[in-house]
Amino acid sequence: MTGEEMHALVARLYPLCRSITGDGVRATLDILGEHLDLDVHEVPTGTQVLDWTVPKEWNVRDAYVMDADGTRVVDFRRSNLHVVGYSVPVSATMTLAELRPHLHTLPDQPDLVPYRTAYYAGTWGFCLSRRTLDGLGEGPYTVVIDSTLADGHLTYAEHVVRGRTTDEVLISCHTCHPSLANDNLAALAVATALASRLERPRLTYRFVFAPGTIGAITWLARNRERVSRIRHGLTLACAGDRGPLTYKRSRRGDAGIDRVMAYALRDRPHTITDFSPYGYDERQYCSPGFDLPVGSLTRTPYAGYPEYHTSGDDLDFVSPESMSDTLEALWSAVEVLEGDGRYLNLSPYGEPQLGRRGLYGSVGGRSDTKQAQMAMLWVLNLSDGAHSLLDVADRSGLPFRAVAEAAQALETAGLLKREGA
Amino acid sequence: MTGEEMHALVARLYPLCRSITGDGVRATLDILGEHLDLDVHEVPTGTQVLDWTVPKEWNVRDAYVMDADGTRVVDFRRSNLHVVGYSVPVSATMTLAELRPHLHTLPDQPDLVPYRTAYYAGTWGFCLSRRTLDGLGEGPYTVVIDSTLADGHLTYAEHVVRGRTTDEVLISCHTCHPSLANDNLAALAVATALASRLERPRLTYRFVFAPGTIGAITWLARNRERVSRIRHGLTLACAGDRGPLTYKRSRRGDAGIDRVMAYALRDRPHTITDFSPYGYDERQYCSPGFDLPVGSLTRTPYAGYPEYHTSGDDLDFVSPESMSDTLEALWSAVEVLEGDGRYLNLSPYGEPQLGRRGLYGSVGGRSDTKQAQMAMLWVLNLSDGAHSLLDVADRSGLPFRAVAEAAQALETAGLLKREGA
Amino acid sequence: MTGEEMHALVARLYPLCRSITGDGVRATLDILGEHLDLDVHEVPTGTQVLDWTVPKEWNVRDAYVMDADGTRVVDFRRSNLHVVGYSVPVSATMTLAELRPHLHTLPDQPDLVPYRTAYYAGTWGFCLSRRTLDGLGEGPYTVVIDSTLADGHLTYAEHVVRGRTTDEVLISCHTCHPSLANDNLAALAVATALASRLERPRLTYRFVFAPGTIGAITWLARNRERVSRIRHGLTLACAGDRGPLTYKRSRRGDAGIDRVMAYALRDRPHTITDFSPYGYDERQYCSPGFDLPVGSLTRTPYAGYPEYHTSGDDLDFVSPESMSDTLEALWSAVEVLEGDGRYLNLSPYGEPQLGRRGLYGSVGGRSDTKQAQMAMLWVLNLSDGAHSLLDVADRSGLPFRAVAEAAQALETAGLLKREGA
Repeated sequence: MTGEEMHALVARLYPLCRSITGDGVRATLDILGEHLDLDVHEVPTGTQVLDWTVPKEWNVRDAYVMDADGTRVVDFRRSNLHVVGYSVPVSATMTLAELRPHLHTLPDQPDLVPYRTAYYAGTWGFCLSRRTLDGLGEGPYTVVIDSTLADGHLTYAEHVVRGRTTDEVLISCHTCHPSLANDNLAALAVATALASRLERPRLTYRFVFAPGTIGAITWLARNRERVSRIRHGLTLACAGDRGPLTYKRSRRGDAGIDRVMAYALRDRPHTITDFSPYGYDERQYCSPGFDLPVGSLTRTPYAGYPEYHTSGDDLDFVSPESMSDTLEALWSAVEVLEGDGRYLNLSPYGEPQLGRRGLYGSVGGRSDTKQAQMAMLWVLNLSDGAHSLLDVADRSGLPFRAVAEAAQALETAGLLKREGA
Repeated sequence: MTGEEMHALVARLYPLCRSITGDGVRATLDILGEHLDLDVHEVPTGTQVLDWTVPKEWNVRDAYVMDADGTRVVDFRRSNLHVVGYSVPVSATMTLAELRPHLHTLPDQPDLVPYRTAYYAGTWGFCLSRRTLDGLGEGPYTVVIDSTLADGHLTYAEHVVRGRTTDEVLISCHTCHPSLANDNLAALAVATALASRLERPRLTYRFVFAPGTIGAITWLARNRERVSRIRHGLTLACAGDRGPLTYKRSRRGDAGIDRVMAYALRDRPHTITDFSPYGYDERQYCSPGFDLPVGSLTRTPYAGYPEYHTSGDDLDFVSPESMSDTLEALWSAVEVLEGDGRYLNLSPYGEPQLGRRGLYGSVGGRSDTKQAQMAMLWVLNLSDGAHSLLDVADRSGLPFRAVAEAAQALETAGLLKREGA
Repeated sequence: MTGEEMHALVARLYPLCRSITGDGVRATLDILGEHLDLDVHEVPTGTQVLDWTVPKEWNVRDAYVMDADGTRVVDFRRSNLHVVGYSVPVSATMTLAELRPHLHTLPDQPDLVPYRTAYYAGTWGFCLSRRTLDGLGEGPYTVVIDSTLADGHLTYAEHVVRGRTTDEVLISCHTCHPSLANDNLAALAVATALASRLERPRLTYRFVFAPGTIGAITWLARNRERVSRIRHGLTLACAGDRGPLTYKRSRRGDAGIDRVMAYALRDRPHTITDFSPYGYDERQYCSPGFDLPVGSLTRTPYAGYPEYHTSGDDLDFVSPESMSDTLEALWSAVEVLEGDGRYLNLSPYGEPQLGRRGLYGSVGGRSDTKQAQMAMLWVLNLSDGAHSLLDVADRSGLPFRAVAEAAQALETAGLLKREGA
């Protein structure tokens, strides 16, 4: 998928009213399902998941504040941000003074509508710009939220690209935010593009599309016995803004994914930060009982931009170029994950005579001969079973690809043998 | 005790003639005993202590150099620095030329009287300012040191604040210096203040007031079987000058006390230096056979100021403010020592639902809500039995107190269990 | 040997036509044998050595390109660089156009003759300066290389200085380069001087003079069972140019030799680089099957100067001062290798009373008393069996010699006991 195609996908998903449950999530997964073979899971309200319980399902058909002239001064149909997530139903007439405790604005960003939720709170509310609020008269207003909070399901989906081994790479995206493009539709689009590009990989890639917190917790609860298969993982979020890439390390700090991402990002502007138990669902994957090797990839990180959780996080805020750049960085990581491994030099005493085997010749006509030759010497020297190809690339300063090609040539010549899977 | 009270204590101790043995030490301990419940030990001359032997006890009643007019040109009654420590008795008439080999001055600091000792040397001498020496005529002079060097005792004291565990914190101060305020009366005063402030602590705090080198060696010799109880320790010296605090690490370099002191000092101007086998009694506590986790806290370090071991180290050289600052830094360390511990998250799979337990609410009204919430998330995430609360504070950048309060709240909510003592 | 004597030795060796086999190597070893008791080994053509085979022996009697007037426009008798190493015999008349593919020049360094070889290639060629080539007419030319490539031997030599232990220090120099002074005659001279200076050492020093790559591989193949005796090693090359010293670490990166060389160089301008599997015979010694603790000492490193592998690497390019400096740096390393060891403090509880044993007195009259005393305290403090004297020197910042002398004094006083050999 091109950057433009990813942006078009974001644009299709943008109007849907998502929350941690409900039909907006289902509609979102339906659209992703046009690109990927999705396994959709419906988990009933009341199901115990780790320390939590699956909540009632929330749906909203309409919501508005209407003045005496019949004008909807706040209208869910214009933007689903206008209704506080998980608002209980309301249908009343009240003055502005009565309504005011239920209104949320951003005084410092008077033109933007905030995104607010009230999970498990049994309340209701509207979000609107400060300017709109300032223009409102005393009322009275007709106030309607036509929502349902009822037994139902929490919906999440998986897409698995099976590899030659059962070792898994987890890519997890939260699906619970309504009309916010960067957080997290861009990540859904980039993950979809990445999944589409994977073809018969060595590792198995598992994409999880689930609501934040409760979704990851539900997935973990239902996959408790299987998480040991996860060798590497990422939560993917904020994948489309114009800032540089940010990788947040796993709780372990020195997991394979931490080294791979550092390598994958090294030629791009980027920041690497240490783990903290805050942010996206790495909080759950890296809880101490699981302690999975899961880092987090974003562009501008969690809560790090003024448009965060406001109507400013719209379709213009994310760019095709940024989504492409995120995708290519992920692809660099995939190349390392796929190509990495430990090898054993089968002729470890002294250097083997490469010339006799045509291994100088095999690269003789290429302009990168010297790099190819150095890569062979490095791979031979470090292939003692203790060093991976990524170790070789790191220590030699050579590109991973050159190192992997050298290993391939040496294996073909019978000088090298792959260890393990 | 306030800084002024500590300074007043220093002023009372200042005139006493201390050495590694003798009545000046006993008088000093009597005064400290007005504040603390002291256990005074008297160890007889000739007692074998590790590689050393307790020396004869030295006392001096009077000492002077008197000119022909009967004027005491050097007079022990004006300052006990004037007589070289452990001088043997002398009573003679001699010319300045004859006396000169026994006179010690500081040519580069002509107004100051040096502090000199001659332990185990069987000699005698006087210390005086260069200016005084320059004003002396040819003599003859009456030269008297009315001292005794005889079988007696080495005197040291302990004050123990019993805690709920037998794990000990050692605070050791040398008591052998005569009228030198910073080295080491200020430390005696600060240690006294610290001991007075401790109330029913978790750990047991043992304060040792003993002469330098031979006193620490004597204490170690008599407590050889018990030193394994020492979990943390400090030699405390030079606690009152106006320089910034200096912490010198234990020989181990990464002992608990090294981390705790780094933490306790982080918000104050300070220096941290590596261990060296020189300085105060950390030399003995950190000898390789013991290798105790004992660092050293001073303000300006050992021999690091021009007034060091001179009459310039007087009551003006130490300030109430500096002693208070030293005390508060120690108190910060005590807070960490008392509050630190390893906890186990009892709900380690995913984050527990804090809201349901009122743990957001429990901090809802406070302005530091966000810090308290972050502290709970960090404590939960790192409480795997391998991380202490100090680890959590270090890694999170949060104040130790916030981390300890979070642990307390989580333990009360049944989400956390303390490991060990 | 003085710098001048080493330079004179280089000058004697300079005209000889060396290659990886042949009489030039034998003549070179004959001259070294005037200084050292050499064990010369002759290994027959066809001998299998690790992954390689000893090649045919190459000798060249004469070689030239002669114009129609009978003038030798390229003449082996003027410089052995003019003939490509391992050229097969040729005797022909040809035009410049026909000859041209066999001519090697340096277009960017038009006055210099390159050094080229064609091992195992079955070809022939001449090297000449670009200026000479530009002055040649169309020909025809008489072209003669009077060489033999026949069954014979590969020649290498060893010189062993036996020590009190069988632990070995390996110094390896390549002998295969013709008239190139820095690469590697200077190293042969410095190694000869070092070997001459060693007298009844503690460790055994083994000097290997062998052709590059195939020589080291041959030596390794014939000493496979004995290489475990090598505790420390160096390849020595480019020992005479005017650049600063460069130490390249062993593959292990933290071998004893790596620390010793860092110490030996610390007071000289120098560079330390990480291992790479390229350069001199450290490539073979550090192949993963052997992984010997062998670093590489050069001045300007491998291929790091414009004169490298050209006629510019002549007798003026190397200086007596530089060779002396290389020798002294090696000698500093030898001092540490000889003097280093682990000791056990026999009085580890508290400090032993040094005064009683005259250990202050033993150094009393010297101006470096304080350093000597500090060295004793450091040695006592760290002599727990886990720290070597080099560790003590590193941690204390004291000169190794002071530390070694302190250990000697303490051992004599019965306070210290050497661990192991």
